[in-house]
Amino acid sequence: MSTAISPLAPTDVPEMPAIAGVKLATAAAGIRYKGRTDVLLAVMDKGTTVAGVFTKSKCPSAPVEWSRAKLTRGGSSKGGLARALVVNSGNANAFTGKTGRQATTLTASIAAKAVGCSSNEVFLASTGVIGEPLDATKFDGVLATLAGSAAPDDWMSAAKAIMTTDTFPKVATATVKLGKTKVTINGMAKGAGMIAPDMATMLSFVFTDAPLSSAVLQSLLKTGVEDTFNAVTIDSDTSTSDTLLAFATGTAAANGAPRITRAGDVRLKPFAKAFREVLANLAEQVARDGEGARKLVEIIVDGATTKASARKIAMSVANSPLVKTAIAGEDANWGRVVMAIGKAGEPANRDKISISFNGIRVAKSGARDPSYNEAEVSEVMKNPKIQIKIALGLGKGRDRVLTCDLTKEYVAINGDYRS
Amino acid sequence: MSTAISPLAPTDVPEMPAIAGVKLATAAAGIRYKGRTDVLLAVMDKGTTVAGVFTKSKCPSAPVEWSRAKLTRGGSSKGGLARALVVNSGNANAFTGKTGRQATTLTASIAAKAVGCSSNEVFLASTGVIGEPLDATKFDGVLATLAGSAAPDDWMSAAKAIMTTDTFPKVATATVKLGKTKVTINGMAKGAGMIAPDMATMLSFVFTDAPLSSAVLQSLLKTGVEDTFNAVTIDSDTSTSDTLLAFATGTAAANGAPRITRAGDVRLKPFAKAFREVLANLAEQVARDGEGARKLVEIIVDGATTKASARKIAMSVANSPLVKTAIAGEDANWGRVVMAIGKAGEPANRDKISISFNGIRVAKSGARDPSYNEAEVSEVMKNPKIQIKIALGLGKGRDRVLTCDLTKEYVAINGDYRS
Repeated sequence: MSTAISPLAPTDVPEMPAIAGVKLATAAAGIRYKGRTDVLLAVMDKGTTVAGVFTKSKCPSAPVEWSRAKLTRGGSSKGGLARALVVNSGNANAFTGKTGRQATTLTASIAAKAVGCSSNEVFLASTGVIGEPLDATKFDGVLATLAGSAAPDDWMSAAKAIMTTDTFPKVATATVKLGKTKVTINGMAKGAGMIAPDMATMLSFVFTDAPLSSAVLQSLLKTGVEDTFNAVTIDSDTSTSDTLLAFATGTAAANGAPRITRAGDVRLKPFAKAFREVLANLAEQVARDGEGARKLVEIIVDGATTKASARKIAMSVANSPLVKTAIAGEDANWGRVVMAIGKAGEPANRDKISISFNGIRVAKSGARDPSYNEAEVSEVMKNPKIQIKIALGLGKGRDRVLTCDLTKEYVAINGDYRS
Repeated sequence: MSTAISPLAPTDVPEMPAIAGVKLATAAAGIRYKGRTDVLLAVMDKGTTVAGVFTKSKCPSAPVEWSRAKLTRGGSSKGGLARALVVNSGNANAFTGKTGRQATTLTASIAAKAVGCSSNEVFLASTGVIGEPLDATKFDGVLATLAGSAAPDDWMSAAKAIMTTDTFPKVATATVKLGKTKVTINGMAKGAGMIAPDMATMLSFVFTDAPLSSAVLQSLLKTGVEDTFNAVTIDSDTSTSDTLLAFATGTAAANGAPRITRAGDVRLKPFAKAFREVLANLAEQVARDGEGARKLVEIIVDGATTKASARKIAMSVANSPLVKTAIAGEDANWGRVVMAIGKAGEPANRDKISISFNGIRVAKSGARDPSYNEAEVSEVMKNPKIQIKIALGLGKGRDRVLTCDLTKEYVAINGDYRS
C-alpha cells in the first residue's frame, strides 16, 4: 500500500492555537497498528456543550449509536454536555453485535473514571477494521495516563492519531470575534482511508471556546455540513462510522464573550461564517486525500430548477465512474458529463445544457461548442484542480460538490490484490 | 486498448436459426472505424409488430427519441409496426442538437426508400462517440445495397456489426411452442464498451416469428426486462442511448401459430418464459463483458421487506466501488457489503443480517460468523463467478442483480490516459 503523501495535500499547514478548556493527549494502545499512535483522548472543562451529526447508514457502528444516544443525555436534563472524547483508529467497532455495544460501554466507563465524569458525558468514535471485536480492555490504564498528561496544544499529534490510510493529517483553525471578544475554532478530520477489511470513513472533531448552547451548536453544525462535508464524495460509498462532533467549552465567556442561546442571534453571524469555513477547509482536505486521487474535482451546477436538484445532478456527475476515470486520463469527456446529468433523473433539457472544463466551454445548447478546440481543452485538463461547470438554463438552482478522480491506484488500494 | 476476449465469455455459442420474415445485412460504412462492419440493416416482412424500452436518461440520443416516437405511430393507426431497423456503431448521435435530429430523419428516409416502406416504419439505434455530428449521407447507397443482399441467416455478423469495445458478439436463441406450432426467438446485444469520448451503451434487438400484437410484445418486453436487463449494472452509469427493441414478424401464423392479442392469453405462457430466458441470457452476457471484468458477480438479497427494497439493496452492493474492488482483489470483504446495505437507505436491521460468499457464510446476526475461516473463504473467492448472498431476516422480499468486479483495466479502458 502506498504511503506517499497525496500530491493534492495543502502546502500551507496552520499553527494550531490552544483552546482554553480543551486538553489533548495521544497514545499507542496497540489496537491494530504497530509503532504509531492510535488513540486520542480529549478532555473538556465542565459545562462544555456538544453537538453531532452522523452517518445516515442503516447499519451504523456501535460508537455511532453510543454518541448519538449521549447527545440527548450528556448528564444534564437538557442534554448536550461533554467532558471527554475518545477516538481510536485501527478498529471501527462496526458490525460487532453485542460485543461491540459492550466495548463502547467499557471504553466510556474507563474514560469517565480517568477524567472524573459520568459515562454519559463521554463521546466515542472509532475507525479501522470492521467486523472484528474491539478489545476495549486495551484502554485500561492508557486513558488514565492520557488524562494525566493531556495538554492544550498538541493538535497535530491528535490529528495524526486518528488517521488510518490518510496520507496527511488534516487540521484547520480560525479566530473570529463573538461580540467584542476573540474566540477560536479548531478542527481536525480524517478522510478516505482503508485497512483491509475496512472502508473509507470520515471522522471530524471541531472545538471552540465560544459560549454556545448545545442547541446553537447543533444548528451551526447542521447548517454547516450541508455545503461542506455533505457536498464531498470520494466514491459514493457511505461509511457506517461517519461522525462529526463539535464541542464548545464556553471558556471565552471569562473574557467577555456573550453566551449565545438562540441560533438566530445576530451576534453569531461572523462566528457562523468562520465555523462553516473551518468545516469547508476540512472537507476539502478530505477530497484532496481521496484514495489514489491525483485531481481535485469541483462540480458546479447552476440553472437547475432548485438547489436540491442542482445537488443531485452535481452528485451524479461526481460519483460517475466514467466521468472520474476520464478526468484521471486528463480527457475533457463532456459526453460522460451529459450522461451523468441525464441519469440523475432531475429536470434537464438536453438542448439547453452548456458545459465548461476549467473555464473553457466545450458544449453549448446541447451540442459541441462551435469554437471547441481539442488542444486548448487538453492543456487545461493537466491542471491538478479540475472545475466542471454545468449550466442547465432552467432556473436559479445552484450547487457545488467536491470530489476527486478515479485512478488505478484507487483500485490497487482497495483491491487488496492479495491473491 | 485491450482487444483480448473477456475471460468470462460464454464458451458455448449457439447456432442461430433463420426467422421467417427477417433478413439481415451488414456493411462497412466508414462511420468511424476502419476495416470492420459498422452498420446493420434488418428488413422485416409487412405486418411485423414492434415494441421497445429505452434509457430513462433525461438527455437521450436522437435515435432514442426517433424510435420512441415511432413506436406509437409505425404507419398504422394503432401503431407499433416496423419494416426496417438500422443500427450503426462508431457514432451515437447523442448530444448533437438539431443536426442529430436531421441525421435520424435522413437515415430513416434512406432506409425507407431502400426497403420500400414509410419512414415511420423505420427504427434506429446508434452507439459510439457522442457529441460528434453523424454524417448520415454515408448511408446513402449503402442501405440500398444492403436491402438487396439481406439474407435470413447471418446473425453472428449482425451481432458483430453493432459492437463497440465489446470483446465478443452476444447472441441467444430459443425455440418454443406457441399453441401447437414451433416458433423461434433470436436476440443479439451489445454491452459495455467505449471509444473515447464515449460511454458504456447497451443495445439489444430481439426477433420472433410468433404472431403477437404490438401491445402483447410491449407487455412481454416490459415484464421481461425487469429481472434481466434492468437487473444488470456495470458501473451505475446509464447511457443516453440504451435501447431494446423487439420485433414479431408473425410468419409462424402460416404454420398454424395462433395470433395473440392479449398479454393474459394462457397460450402465451411458454413463449413468455422462453422470451424472458433469451433476455436473461443476453443480459448476463453484457455483465460477462463488463469493461475490464474478471469476475461475474451475482448479488442475491432475501428477507427484505419487499422485492423493490431487495432490488435497491442489491443495486447498492452491486454499484459500490469498494465492494467491486474487493472482489477484484479476491477479498471476501463483507464489511463493505454491510456498508453498501447500510447506505441503501432501505429497511435493514444490522443485528439480523447474514452474508455468504459462494455459499460460505461469513457474517451472521450482525457479527462475524463464529465458524469464519479466512483460508476457506479466500479459496472460493478465486472462482470466476462470485455469488454474494445477503439475508436480511425482515420479510419475504427477494431479488437478484448481476454485475462484475472493478479492476485496474476498467480504469485503464475508461481513463484513456492520453496524457
